[in-house]
Amino acid sequence: MGNLVADLRAIAGPAHVLADPDVVAGYATDWTRRYTGSASCVVSPGTTAQIAEAIQACAGYGARVIPQGGNTGLVGGSIPPAQSDGADCVILSTKRLTALCPVDPRSRQVTAGAGVTIARLADHAAAAGLRYGVDLASRDSATVGGTIATNAGGIHTIRYGPTRSQVAGLIAVLADGSVVGSLSGLTAGSTGFDLAQLLVGSEGTLAVITEARLALRPPEPAAAVLIAGTTGIAAATELLAHIREVIPDLLAAEYIDAAGLALVRDVAGLAPPTADPHEGYLLVEIAATAGVPDPDAYLQRLDTVGLPADTVVALDANAMAALWSYRERITEAIATIGMPHKIDVAVPIPALGAFCADLEGVVRDAVHGHGNSEPRLIVFGHLGVGNLHVNVLGPDPADTGVDEAVARLAASHGGSVAAEHGIGRAKTGWLAFSSLAADVDAMRSIKTALDPAGLLNPGVLFPPEIQQQRATTRTV
Amino acid sequence: MGNLVADLRAIAGPAHVLADPDVVAGYATDWTRRYTGSASCVVSPGTTAQIAEAIQACAGYGARVIPQGGNTGLVGGSIPPAQSDGADCVILSTKRLTALCPVDPRSRQVTAGAGVTIARLADHAAAAGLRYGVDLASRDSATVGGTIATNAGGIHTIRYGPTRSQVAGLIAVLADGSVVGSLSGLTAGSTGFDLAQLLVGSEGTLAVITEARLALRPPEPAAAVLIAGTTGIAAATELLAHIREVIPDLLAAEYIDAAGLALVRDVAGLAPPTADPHEGYLLVEIAATAGVPDPDAYLQRLDTVGLPADTVVALDANAMAALWSYRERITEAIATIGMPHKIDVAVPIPALGAFCADLEGVVRDAVHGHGNSEPRLIVFGHLGVGNLHVNVLGPDPADTGVDEAVARLAASHGGSVAAEHGIGRAKTGWLAFSSLAADVDAMRSIKTALDPAGLLNPGVLFPPEIQQQRATTRTV
Repeated sequence: MGNLVADLRAIAGPAHVLADPDVVAGYATDWTRRYTGSASCVVSPGTTAQIAEAIQACAGYGARVIPQGGNTGLVGGSIPPAQSDGADCVILSTKRLTALCPVDPRSRQVTAGAGVTIARLADHAAAAGLRYGVDLASRDSATVGGTIATNAGGIHTIRYGPTRSQVAGLIAVLADGSVVGSLSGLTAGSTGFDLAQLLVGSEGTLAVITEARLALRPPEPAAAVLIAGTTGIAAATELLAHIREVIPDLLAAEYIDAAGLALVRDVAGLAPPTADPHEGYLLVEIAATAGVPDPDAYLQRLDTVGLPADTVVALDANAMAALWSYRERITEAIATIGMPHKIDVAVPIPALGAFCADLEGVVRDAVHGHGNSEPRLIVFGHLGVGNLHVNVLGPDPADTGVDEAVARLAASHGGSVAAEHGIGRAKTGWLAFSSLAADVDAMRSIKTALDPAGLLNPGVLFPPEIQQQRATTRTV
Repeated sequence: MGNLVADLRAIAGPAHVLADPDVVAGYATDWTRRYTGSASCVVSPGTTAQIAEAIQACAGYGARVIPQGGNTGLVGGSIPPAQSDGADCVILSTKRLTALCPVDPRSRQVTAGAGVTIARLADHAAAAGLRYGVDLASRDSATVGGTIATNAGGIHTIRYGPTRSQVAGLIAVLADGSVVGSLSGLTAGSTGFDLAQLLVGSEGTLAVITEARLALRPPEPAAAVLIAGTTGIAAATELLAHIREVIPDLLAAEYIDAAGLALVRDVAGLAPPTADPHEGYLLVEIAATAGVPDPDAYLQRLDTVGLPADTVVALDANAMAALWSYRERITEAIATIGMPHKIDVAVPIPALGAFCADLEGVVRDAVHGHGNSEPRLIVFGHLGVGNLHVNVLGPDPADTGVDEAVARLAASHGGSVAAEHGIGRAKTGWLAFSSLAADVDAMRSIKTALDPAGLLNPGVLFPPEIQQQRATTRTV
């Protein structure tokens, strides 16, 4: 391995290859600390060309390449495998790809390096009078490249779509070191397969993304935020549909169940948002439609919806922030009472009620089957796009029985086992719950076609046995 | 071939396999009549399962499959090759896949069969109080499947994106007869490579699309349409940027050059739209932003833009339609004076001025180099997304010199040789002008991985020599 480190130092510069085991261990551990692996070194190239050279160098030594952005994923997708199949792993960090071009106001697009953080991108867009459509809690660490590779979501997905909808082009390095893609940002038309869209959500298994051309949006400040007490998620879904009929442009539509609201109130010391407690809470943020911010008009329209009696509407910034705090502080509140199983699933909106009706029983059965005590269940998430975060406290963090049971339940309701966090290493075994075997076969064919040696991010996305198969047919 | 026809009749029903040469010839000819090929029969299966069986039957006989929707493409992508490499071709029409499910208002999505026309889909969405985001002149014939396969655009691309942006899922049959995809319509999240997005724009070379889950939009009637006289496309682009700064939500932004406007006035007998003639005309349609249709507010905002003195703003439906007629009647006006070379290209918006500045010289050189008389050049198109339709009259329709020169010019300005019509058979030789060799190689790897026998739409998208290469390695 000494030679590979030396070669990588010659490519990226001596300062940009870290081989101290303690330092490498930090990069090889997931943000959740639930996933950790082992790597020989961390290389941080400064250009696309250096990344191509680094990948080719790794291929020459039979070493696997683990692309890493902000390392804020929650499913182990940006760290090396825990069990090596004998090959060395090199973590390829994109943190030095921080170039950020001036915003082009005519196309409403910007070109950003893969290592630019979402927070910096958002500030850059705002300085040009525009907005980046994806925002998420990890904005200070999560990167352009990482969020594209995982098709990251967030609270504004209902309005602007997930990261996929922002990508107007990208540059990436394939496993053979070839550079593909375009930054021309053309939204009209077609010249063959859209490789950029294939790479969105490919979780580092097909290429290392180095630059992206991203769509920006006109700014839309919030005109109002409301929280409505409901009888549960089915009622919240119904209410949301009525609200969207009269106010189509919602910036966010979130759900918090009774257990989640009680916990966040308790931990954060917040007053109740509504007069009485409820089974579930719908939080809606309404856009001040471009240039016509008229709160009265919104309120009149909301009046026609038949909002529940126990609804609070905030119209000024402080009051809006106060309502958001119930949703924004849930994750930290949960962290104070233990290490939860966080199961990120998507379910078609019409099936959310039935999914949640089954959830408690499924969780209890899964937990008791593993000899655990009574579980604590908290459900919240991006209701407007059917993306729920199911949190279960009680079972040992290493016991994935409840995670699997919830993923299976989502799939049985027509949903998917992974949503805004992706498959990573955590969910490869469950891919078949919600994807047709033919889909997985087609994915595998594409993976083999573009990365025949299984060089990029082995063990991510595909079940490990497939990677092992691959390793035996390695041609490098 | 007799056996294949019999097998296909057994699969799809005797009435749904047409083998009369005169009838087949009609299906084997492109809407433009510039492209025609030869096929043994036309099969119109009624279900996804029948399509899978039909593809497998064709594979068994070594026959190629040419998927066909409305056959309204303009680049020969939906008809068989003119020169056979010895293999029979079967046209697989999706016209019987006309199922249209009820609109789901909660997800704002609908499931439609591949053979549903865009006009029928639009009516269906409107009946549910929603709108389909893509509209195009061929709406009465163009189908859901065909517009997905070509990533069709149209006048609303600036607002809703091309067809790609509408696709929330699809079902398709691969070359091996396996059925892939999902209609769950989940917009949040990622469970591996997005096969649906890979198939958008793949022009029938990877799969036959049979059903799609499509996003619908809230209706946005037009509040105003304006035509502004400008000094040319650079000025029109600049003006459009200013308008978008104050009114972000434009439904359309079209360009018509002086020659185009003069011709359409002449042929259609229309009065001039503006007081004086100009080098170029910007036509803008402004959405009545959801629920707050206030023409005065728009006009006040437009006042801040510094519109050219010679601008006409229409606020009522008849006046808006009158302004649109200059744009909508251009294609028929051009058809009255000859068979034009129609070159559909996309150019980054900031480069449109430079592209058009070079265009006349490039066209003249290309035409004179081929011994033709003075050409007539008309430029119009979807300015807001950089998609221009360059029309050249004069050169013999069979002489593609000017088409190639214009495609090359677009590429030299950072644009692409194809836009909303795709590559088809017409532009395969020019793919490399605007795509990196590595991109084409990656596309070819994916094509080989999913269709190793080159069964689906040979000669489309990839240069013919590649298909011939493929034919020699055919494994069926």
